[in-house]
Amino acid sequence: MKQCGKQTACLTNPAAIGAHACVAGKKEGQGPLGTAIDTLYEDGMLGLKSWEQAESAMQKEAFSLALGKGGYTESAIRFILAGDLLGQCIGSAFGLRDYAVPFIGLYGACSTMAESLGLGALLIDGGFADRIGAVTSSHFCGSERQFRLPLEYGGQRPPTAQWTVTGAGAAVLEKAEVCGKPDSPRVSHVTFGKMVDMGVKDVSYMGAAMAPAAYDTISAHFADCGTKPEDYDLIVTGDLGATGADILRDLFAKNGVVLGKQYNDCGVMIFAPGDADVGDGGSGCGCSAVVLCGHILNGMRRGQWKNVLFCGTGALFSTVSAQQGESIPSVCHAVRIIGG
Amino acid sequence: MKQCGKQTACLTNPAAIGAHACVAGKKEGQGPLGTAIDTLYEDGMLGLKSWEQAESAMQKEAFSLALGKGGYTESAIRFILAGDLLGQCIGSAFGLRDYAVPFIGLYGACSTMAESLGLGALLIDGGFADRIGAVTSSHFCGSERQFRLPLEYGGQRPPTAQWTVTGAGAAVLEKAEVCGKPDSPRVSHVTFGKMVDMGVKDVSYMGAAMAPAAYDTISAHFADCGTKPEDYDLIVTGDLGATGADILRDLFAKNGVVLGKQYNDCGVMIFAPGDADVGDGGSGCGCSAVVLCGHILNGMRRGQWKNVLFCGTGALFSTVSAQQGESIPSVCHAVRIIGG
Repeated sequence: MKQCGKQTACLTNPAAIGAHACVAGKKEGQGPLGTAIDTLYEDGMLGLKSWEQAESAMQKEAFSLALGKGGYTESAIRFILAGDLLGQCIGSAFGLRDYAVPFIGLYGACSTMAESLGLGALLIDGGFADRIGAVTSSHFCGSERQFRLPLEYGGQRPPTAQWTVTGAGAAVLEKAEVCGKPDSPRVSHVTFGKMVDMGVKDVSYMGAAMAPAAYDTISAHFADCGTKPEDYDLIVTGDLGATGADILRDLFAKNGVVLGKQYNDCGVMIFAPGDADVGDGGSGCGCSAVVLCGHILNGMRRGQWKNVLFCGTGALFSTVSAQQGESIPSVCHAVRIIGG
Repeated sequence: MKQCGKQTACLTNPAAIGAHACVAGKKEGQGPLGTAIDTLYEDGMLGLKSWEQAESAMQKEAFSLALGKGGYTESAIRFILAGDLLGQCIGSAFGLRDYAVPFIGLYGACSTMAESLGLGALLIDGGFADRIGAVTSSHFCGSERQFRLPLEYGGQRPPTAQWTVTGAGAAVLEKAEVCGKPDSPRVSHVTFGKMVDMGVKDVSYMGAAMAPAAYDTISAHFADCGTKPEDYDLIVTGDLGATGADILRDLFAKNGVVLGKQYNDCGVMIFAPGDADVGDGGSGCGCSAVVLCGHILNGMRRGQWKNVLFCGTGALFSTVSAQQGESIPSVCHAVRIIGG
């Protein structure tokens, strides 16, 4: 078995990330990572008729840009692994239906970028594909309609609430032998997480719901690989937000582990500091997808980081489950990416 | 590459289906395959407070029964691959959150049983797991609330409409070397399908939307493997219903291929003939899951069939996409299962 310890898959042949791209909205473009975003849309509708259509168009564009950057034709891609937050994952279905590529739909809530990257890397190492697309997205307006209140209602948001990122990210994973791009970062280890539900029911405090899942997966990864935080030059969670990231630091500290300066959270990184709208930070599948497929992978290609632990976090609830009084089961999938 | 032709994964080491189980509601129990269902519930609420909770309880029970039949402990399972039809797949999240097993969420609409079985078999053959759970479910009442009209409204259904199966199925895939159960059917080939959208917009005629996707995947499978319908002793689609199955037969006939007596559709098989409620047949993730994890796999263990092509079909739409006037992209994933 290609396995370290109890829970981590160790790839015999790390899968190269041959190309990556991301697109996002105006607010994301104004954040500190805006220059790493390939296409920014001034109009959140992208000139289309609905937010859902706009989200689909962003997925299509992100994947198309990734194909273009890598010089890949559609027919060179063996599978697309994709999902999103909308009910029945219509962002992915309608965004990617025009590609004549076998489609494997995922649902990992905001952990989807890590889930798709991890599964794709395993399928390549397993010998089932030379190239796989990993794609996801979210849209602030579509998510508010899906999960919260009509935008027109103008409801007040508590300070722990997060702001769904409008954006999409796409990566093309490639068998290292055929990649031919020596600066490509590579996926070497994947730790898929268990669901963790600590009973948090507040859908405006998802960081608190997801932090224990992040702790569970990341500590399993450290134990399995015999590593500690200092062995990575960047550890990022998907979208715990500022408060959720603090809870994660506290959970590690209580167990004698210091998540030092190398730890950050995509939800904290993506928006401009002091932007009063965004509350505790960014969220949505697009959050970690845009940060990874722009800022982080660009940085890795430049040699800024050599050893990254990318930890997608997902809150597995719906409006219906919340209205029925259920708590929020959460999950975190961690992918180790080593420098080009 | 472990690949036949353009689109089919050929497993070096076919993954054994070490155990399987299914549970369902009263109506499914009254159908011709009722005796192959492990647990039947008289009460569609299972004594719980909501249909969604009942669906989750069915997933939990189906997986628990499969573990019990195979004599597996929870800790022997490396991953669970699961999904369902409810928004944000809460049937799976809440049904399986109590298992301390890494959770990989899928969304393939009604193709989920084939998707999970196919991906699981690839991950085992790839060397990443010894044992994987594949689980899915659907619930008539929850699906009506999710996709159609309130039950209380008593809306009339057109004759092409299908009836969502209340039920769940679970299979435990196992590396053949460790399985030790010589009668276990084995997954030998997996053909993941492309999305196909022929412009059908009628959500009460999903068979018409899905049949072209089934044709696309099954004909790719035949071409890749150099096989024809007569090489299988059972070919089943997931839930095209009677009319959809006829469309599939017609699509093959137009291309000079006769889908003969060995072809059937789980949606046609599951309910009692002449049951006026069910319209064109069964549907929902639970439909093909219950038929596979009861009737078909039981029959394969008894030697009734030796070579089965199990083709899950999914309509990748949502209420929102339908209300916005979109058509229905569809997908079909085919899994070849060879006899024990």
